[in-house]
Amino acid sequence: MEPTITSSSNPLVKRIRRLHRARGRREAGLTLIEGPKVFAQMVTAGVVPEAIIAEASDEATMELCYSQGWVPSLVATEVLTAAADAVHPQSPVAAIRIPKGRAIRHRDSLILNDIADPGNVGTMFRSAAAFGWDVCVSGATADPWSPKVLRAGAGSHFGMHISSSDDPVADAHTAGLELLASIVSGGDDPGRGERRIALLIGSEAHGLSEKITTQADRSVTLSMPGGAESLNAAVAASILMYLLAGES
Amino acid sequence: MEPTITSSSNPLVKRIRRLHRARGRREAGLTLIEGPKVFAQMVTAGVVPEAIIAEASDEATMELCYSQGWVPSLVATEVLTAAADAVHPQSPVAAIRIPKGRAIRHRDSLILNDIADPGNVGTMFRSAAAFGWDVCVSGATADPWSPKVLRAGAGSHFGMHISSSDDPVADAHTAGLELLASIVSGGDDPGRGERRIALLIGSEAHGLSEKITTQADRSVTLSMPGGAESLNAAVAASILMYLLAGES
Repeated sequence: MEPTITSSSNPLVKRIRRLHRARGRREAGLTLIEGPKVFAQMVTAGVVPEAIIAEASDEATMELCYSQGWVPSLVATEVLTAAADAVHPQSPVAAIRIPKGRAIRHRDSLILNDIADPGNVGTMFRSAAAFGWDVCVSGATADPWSPKVLRAGAGSHFGMHISSSDDPVADAHTAGLELLASIVSGGDDPGRGERRIALLIGSEAHGLSEKITTQADRSVTLSMPGGAESLNAAVAASILMYLLAGES
Repeated sequence: MEPTITSSSNPLVKRIRRLHRARGRREAGLTLIEGPKVFAQMVTAGVVPEAIIAEASDEATMELCYSQGWVPSLVATEVLTAAADAVHPQSPVAAIRIPKGRAIRHRDSLILNDIADPGNVGTMFRSAAAFGWDVCVSGATADPWSPKVLRAGAGSHFGMHISSSDDPVADAHTAGLELLASIVSGGDDPGRGERRIALLIGSEAHGLSEKITTQADRSVTLSMPGGAESLNAAVAASILMYLLAGES
């Protein structure tokens, strides 16, 4: 099949490229997903994209689109590369509507506070999905619907309850959750109480603020027998979710 | 203090920039570390750098250098930016000799097989250091001494036994270790036997090869009650090290 779009200055490609920037995503209410794996998870979740561009050689995506009655715009490799946000793009690239923010609910929830690195945010989402937790973004956490976070999330966004909160301490308490602060030293060994959990994780550079830590019901710390000072924030969050996971 | 190097075409800056590339590092036997935290860990570990460039405003590094009797080359911010590998560089940038490869020894060891992403390699090193494990790189794993891996490792390289192996199965058995293959489904629950452990982690995209998996003494799998297919490779390795950690 011949590509239907051969130029990067095609209007659809230009609209897609605007979604690389936070402002473009905010104005359009759309974001981008890229690559066959995340696209397949999106289909499984019943999400209908606003636009799809793909290489004709990407047979898996072609079949998925036809099974759904969608007609992707076929593009040359250099057009896909121009449209995609990734450094090493993979077909397809699809624009999807960003879901409306939800509220924290009465389930085990990971609360990301000031997590700056998109890779860390996506990795935490991926682990939360694997262990059956909700996620909540708060503070200066990276945009959970940026293409970078979606890539690191590996499709986990579509199966999860994602909320946002300007006051996660109050909102978690309102939802009936026990608030656990993850701190790098001096906290209790991780253990589950009787209530469902809101696990707070703070910024990579500075951890949680003292204000938030003192408002939590308990603080927890992972033992590090090797003597190193700290773990990557996404690793620490993931180990804690694994250890704390219960019926939720 | 006035910068002593004001031009990015200064010979020292050019020599440092060559270390951004694998070939330049191989030819010189040197690599780069960047930023105050990794630099401080390097000093603590007793490593003496071959060259240091720093901004005069970086007082922590200045003090560390003077305490060691080292004289850093002072540079303007734009020169530091040119010399550094990071997108958001931090003073100082130092060239250090790449340590000679060692052999797997009789300690709990994480064996990285075909881990492509430098961030994942560095994150695994950081977790291994926190939990007291050795690390071994094998197969097509990213260069453990690249600036990207050193950044993600957050200084953990300097406190750890790092080995490399062309035949990790044979070398781990020679070292008397029980070989555990981490697989995404169908393995045993993680548990420690009587012997020290070599934990094998395979590539982000394809996991361990069947050949390596069948040569292992046991396979282990993390339970994922949320139903997602997989965890980030560095997260999975870190949780397994945490769960399996024993006296080593």
